[in-house]
This record gives sequence, structure tokens and C-alpha cells, in this order.
Amino acid sequence: MPLQQPSPAVVLLSGGLDSATVLALAAREGYVCHALSLRYGQRHALELERAAAIARQHGAAHHIVLDIDLRRFGGSALTADIPVPKQRTPAAIGRTIPPTYVPARNTVFLSLALAWAETLAAADIFIGVNALDYSGYPDCRPEYIAAFELMANLATKAGTEGEKRLRIHAPLIHMSKADIIRKGAALGVDFALTLSCYDPGPAGAPCRACDACLLRAKGFAEAGLDDPAMGSARP
Amino acid sequence: MPLQQPSPAVVLLSGGLDSATVLALAAREGYVCHALSLRYGQRHALELERAAAIARQHGAAHHIVLDIDLRRFGGSALTADIPVPKQRTPAAIGRTIPPTYVPARNTVFLSLALAWAETLAAADIFIGVNALDYSGYPDCRPEYIAAFELMANLATKAGTEGEKRLRIHAPLIHMSKADIIRKGAALGVDFALTLSCYDPGPAGAPCRACDACLLRAKGFAEAGLDDPAMGSARP
Repeated sequence: MPLQQPSPAVVLLSGGLDSATVLALAAREGYVCHALSLRYGQRHALELERAAAIARQHGAAHHIVLDIDLRRFGGSALTADIPVPKQRTPAAIGRTIPPTYVPARNTVFLSLALAWAETLAAADIFIGVNALDYSGYPDCRPEYIAAFELMANLATKAGTEGEKRLRIHAPLIHMSKADIIRKGAALGVDFALTLSCYDPGPAGAPCRACDACLLRAKGFAEAGLDDPAMGSARP
Repeated sequence: MPLQQPSPAVVLLSGGLDSATVLALAAREGYVCHALSLRYGQRHALELERAAAIARQHGAAHHIVLDIDLRRFGGSALTADIPVPKQRTPAAIGRTIPPTYVPARNTVFLSLALAWAETLAAADIFIGVNALDYSGYPDCRPEYIAAFELMANLATKAGTEGEKRLRIHAPLIHMSKADIIRKGAALGVDFALTLSCYDPGPAGAPCRACDACLLRAKGFAEAGLDDPAMGSARP
């Protein structure tokens, strides 16, 4: 079935700077963006408010925040009562799987994006995973994304009725954090809205010590840009 | 990391006769079964009470009913306001994808099973899909299950740290409904507890006309067994 022009796409949107940049990219490419955020029991639900603001800023046609309580399974510092590691050296980050890893999170999120995409007759799903300046999660690797795409085409009508092939777009996967920041800046992403910290204060002040804060600071430094989210706790 | 004997497994349990038979099988094989049911906005939430009773009957170590409201996406007769087809001929069932198909449902369910399996260090996931006497859903085919397994091993620690490979077990996939019923009967499944109907009455009385009722009736007839769920609306 040919899609109407312009094409709908589902964009996973966490409220962090990577997914904000991906949304900006997809919107710039002309997709009618359906942004999907998950309230999965994360410590920092504040990121969902940021996601809503980012979705509005980039003209998303629709933004759904879906509840799925992954705390029922436990097993991660982001959803269970396990401390977030702090002040790890840049060399240590990405080497091993840290306790902030949420088991199968990207698979759960992509599956839900797939469910929405199928009801929208959307053949395009965007996700802001990154395999370079990242925390070492297995579900951020290119081979994982490729395997998900293959599975998704067998899982759905796309795979059975000669419809358009589903594509999982991970446009940041080979980019450094500095490259992502430069790209986001060029696309007009308001980084002050984005929240990367795994363990922010109540008003969203970043802890400046978790892996996500350290990678973000390194990225802004390498890009030669100031991080507008630093120094002031945005509401 | 070697698993303790006996091994934990996650078993997707809908409250229907297929998944009840799969749970009985996994328990018989010696797995410590962690049963997972989803409250996804289905019309017939009664099946979740049946799932709980079935989990108890077969000694599941744990049963989680997780909420995930797939009605937010719409698109299926099982979750949206679209009529359930009735009185289709056996030849018509399975030919095309019917409106009772829930977009990407098995992918969402298997992803959640994967998340739980990873936190349990379980390498085995069981699902009662069936590609023979089935409703024609793409996510019931063997090639889909194989692709999911491949993806799951790249998505998780299983794929990165030399741990035991994750396996998606779909022991019914090549069985006829009659074979499944014979197998379930041999394993002591109480079919009176199982609910297959897509559109049951309030007390669980099957409609006897939807695809699931027709396939079930055909299966019992071919197996030469009486269906204890027929003729009385079990509480």
C-alpha cells in the first residue's frame, strides 16, 4: 500500500540530547513525526516533561507517553534501588555493561514503536542509539539494530503482504557525542531542554558525575560549545 | 555465568489453551517457570484471572501481570472498537490477516519476556505460538521466532559476555490444534480453566463463532475429546 506523502514515522524520544537531535533530523527530512516516550519507572521522570517540550518544539504531529513499569522486573540502577556509578574515567565508560543498563530496554521500546508504526502504516522508525560515546549497552550496537529490523519485517504485515519494508533508522550510531552536538546545534535543538543525567536533582540539575553527564560534558568540550543546561537548573 | 540447577525460564501465559500447554510442558521439563501475562487493553481481561489460576495449577514460581495499554495505538479488533469477525469458514481462517491481529503483539510480549529473563539470568523463554491451526498472524511464523531469537542474543548481555545463548522455545509451532489438545491433556492441563474466545460473555462463556472458538472446537473434535469449557460458563 503506497503511503501518502509526506510519510509518517515513529521517533523514540527520551528527553535526552541524542533523541532530540534524531527528532530534529527526521522532521528536517520531511517525516510526519509521531514521538513515543516511555514512562518505564525511571528515576528521572522529569525527562518526560522535557520530551513533551522537545516534541512541541520540533512540530511532532503526535506525542504519546506510554506507561510500562519495568520496575516489576528490577535489575537496573535506573529502575531499581541500585546506586548509579559516579566519576568513572572516560576510559572505563563503555568497556563493560554498567548497572544503569536496563535489561532489554531498547528492544522493549523499539517493539512498542513497531506496534505504533504498524497501526499508522508507517515504514520508518527512528532511534537515537549511539555506539561510539556510549555507556556500553549491548542494545546500542549496529548489529543489534540490523537484527531488530530483520525481525520487525517478519513480525508485521510489512513482511507478509509486499508492503514497504520497515526501516529502523539509527542516524547517530556511528557519530561521536561531539558530532551529535554539532548536528543538533545546526538543526536548532534547544539543548537547554534536554536532560541526559541518570541521577538529576529534583529540578533537573545534572549531577555532573554519572556516565551520561561525563559523556555529555566531553561532547560539548570537543564540539567547542557551551552546554546551556549546565549551571542552571531549568524548570 | 553457569546457571543454578534447575534453570529459570520465562513463560508467556495468556490464559488460552496453547500457553497453558506450554507452561505445563516447561514445568514438566524441569524449568522453574516465571509466568508473564500482559494486561494490554484486551476486551477479555477475564483471561488474566484464568492465567493466574493456570500458573498456580502448574506450580509457577512467580506470575507477573504487567500493564501495557496497547489501546493507545489502536488498530485491532481486540483492543479498539472494531468488530470481531464471526462464523468464518475454516478455509478462510489463516489466509489473510484478520482485524483481531494486534500489531506487533508477540514482539512486544517477547521483548518484555526478554527483559524479565535477563534480570533472572534465564536463558529460556517459552511462547505458545502456532503456525498451523492459527489465525494468520505474521508473528506466529517459525522464521519470525528464529529472527527474534537472533535479535535477542544481540540485544542482551547474553550476546556480549559469553553467557549462555538465549533460546526462544515455541514447542507448539508445528502442531495442529488437535495435537496441542492431546499434549495438554496428557500433561494434565485443566482446559476448563482456559479461555480461547476473542469475544466471551461477561462470565467467560465462549461466543462459539470467532476464529479462536472455531479453531478450538475443530481441535477438540479432531482430538476426539470433549471441551470442558463448552456448555458451562466457568466462574
